[in-house]
Amino acid sequence: MCKASRGNPRDAFFISQNYKNNHQNLITMQVAIQGVKGAFHEVAARNYFGNDIEILPMLHFSDLAESVQNGDCDYGIMAVENTISGTIHANLNLIREHKLVVCGEEYLRIRQNLVAKKGTKIEDLNEVHSHYMAINQTRKFFKQHPNVHLVDSIDTALSMKEIAENNLDKRGAIGSLLAAEHYDLEVLAESIETNKKNYTRFLILRNKETWNKNDSNKASMALVLDNHLGSLAEILSIIASHNIDLSKIESVPLVGEPWHYQFYLDVLFDDKSKYHNMITEISSKLDRIDILGEYTNGNQSYSKIHHHDN
Amino acid sequence: MCKASRGNPRDAFFISQNYKNNHQNLITMQVAIQGVKGAFHEVAARNYFGNDIEILPMLHFSDLAESVQNGDCDYGIMAVENTISGTIHANLNLIREHKLVVCGEEYLRIRQNLVAKKGTKIEDLNEVHSHYMAINQTRKFFKQHPNVHLVDSIDTALSMKEIAENNLDKRGAIGSLLAAEHYDLEVLAESIETNKKNYTRFLILRNKETWNKNDSNKASMALVLDNHLGSLAEILSIIASHNIDLSKIESVPLVGEPWHYQFYLDVLFDDKSKYHNMITEISSKLDRIDILGEYTNGNQSYSKIHHHDN
Repeated sequence: MCKASRGNPRDAFFISQNYKNNHQNLITMQVAIQGVKGAFHEVAARNYFGNDIEILPMLHFSDLAESVQNGDCDYGIMAVENTISGTIHANLNLIREHKLVVCGEEYLRIRQNLVAKKGTKIEDLNEVHSHYMAINQTRKFFKQHPNVHLVDSIDTALSMKEIAENNLDKRGAIGSLLAAEHYDLEVLAESIETNKKNYTRFLILRNKETWNKNDSNKASMALVLDNHLGSLAEILSIIASHNIDLSKIESVPLVGEPWHYQFYLDVLFDDKSKYHNMITEISSKLDRIDILGEYTNGNQSYSKIHHHDN
Repeated sequence: MCKASRGNPRDAFFISQNYKNNHQNLITMQVAIQGVKGAFHEVAARNYFGNDIEILPMLHFSDLAESVQNGDCDYGIMAVENTISGTIHANLNLIREHKLVVCGEEYLRIRQNLVAKKGTKIEDLNEVHSHYMAINQTRKFFKQHPNVHLVDSIDTALSMKEIAENNLDKRGAIGSLLAAEHYDLEVLAESIETNKKNYTRFLILRNKETWNKNDSNKASMALVLDNHLGSLAEILSIIASHNIDLSKIESVPLVGEPWHYQFYLDVLFDDKSKYHNMITEISSKLDRIDILGEYTNGNQSYSKIHHHDN
């Protein structure tokens, strides 16, 4: 039922780097994304895995999770948090419900671009369509173009698809350069987002049964603990005492259990044995602990992207 | 420029309770919401303030924040977190950027209802339109109705408005009962959401200059701290040592400052002097602290709603 494991994604990445030199023996990996072709999920997938992958577009996040669970693809990639809109709890729940394992992460800076039919000028446009988040991100740019009426749509790449399919010449769209290329549209203005520090974090997902653990310096987990005064402080003190750093913490109230809290934690470690000792020590004090995955952190590429922009 | 303060919202609530007995001298408060009439923001506003308010619909969250800042309304109400989709960081940022004060909170259980033109039956429908979150929430219900094609739209109440304005008889919509009533549509099925524990938390917002503090047992704040190992554990230990409970914690990475974190914290307290002592003690250890507001917690109504449902 499940496809055989094809190695870890970083191997695949190196395979893709050597594609031209070593065309034979290449196995094209299938990566499930949410959204249509050209969506930011595809951009993140190509940044992480390289270009020699087959993209499987999924309409809903739940379809994406099912596809990974059923082994219909090799990997899935799923947005879980964004600088502006926060953590998508529903997606973290999907990962847990479908018993997927997090085996990597990718941070993508969200760059919005104005595109339209080839030959169009900004002055020709009556309307620009995009997802409301993309519109919110670019409102400042459009203040200089009062001729343009901004219209909310359900998806950035889909708004481009509509222009291409219906050959609309008074309408623009906002979204990724990849989508513009895919739908053969012209880029009228690049990187028009107001906030240049808007990142989305994507998790790379894998079926638990076909996944072989490899190197890691980061782990994501969900904890449930009894909220007596200071219980969270105690857990965090233990983590710090093992020389392990916290890169994310987020409480999730458990409805109907007023003094019971669930926390999502991400930790960073240099030494795996210290990490394992820490897990053993905190587990005895917790009502429940779920490790979502142990993987290599994506901070390097994150900082690299960031330095380019400033 | 700013309207005179008209008392605190709970006073207004009691005024509305006595409306029939005491019609004269009633001053109708203006409350800005996000979305069109019938949006869940209006439902939350009426639950909090009572029915004798004037609703000012705002297209975008930023318009809502501006309206409160400029004194164009008495209060604003703004969704900041949801059980399924998490915290809306952009909205917390708007509260801080516009220097608004949080003076209350309201938890609303999100109930989705299927509505259509009067006289329509479920079997007659070809399409049902709604915001993708509402569709995701009700997918299970529609599995029993394969005749219905689900179509994403940009807003729940707007989908109802479209049916009413265009007199569409093959189309349904999903949203609040208030919107159904407002657009004079028939409710074909009530409370069709799969997750009966989906709550949205709304904050009641006020212009800082016209707000007089009143009783409080809860505070929302944003902290920035140097992420040396264990620094967060230290802050939480101090909070616990003052007998103050944490009801929310969420880290927000500061892009470009890799070892610097911002945290949103909500705390609950019985004794205001203990709270003030705690703030004094942690402030000396923080790089920055912003108190977003001190107010009365909405947990009572939250638990009350919850007990009704189970």
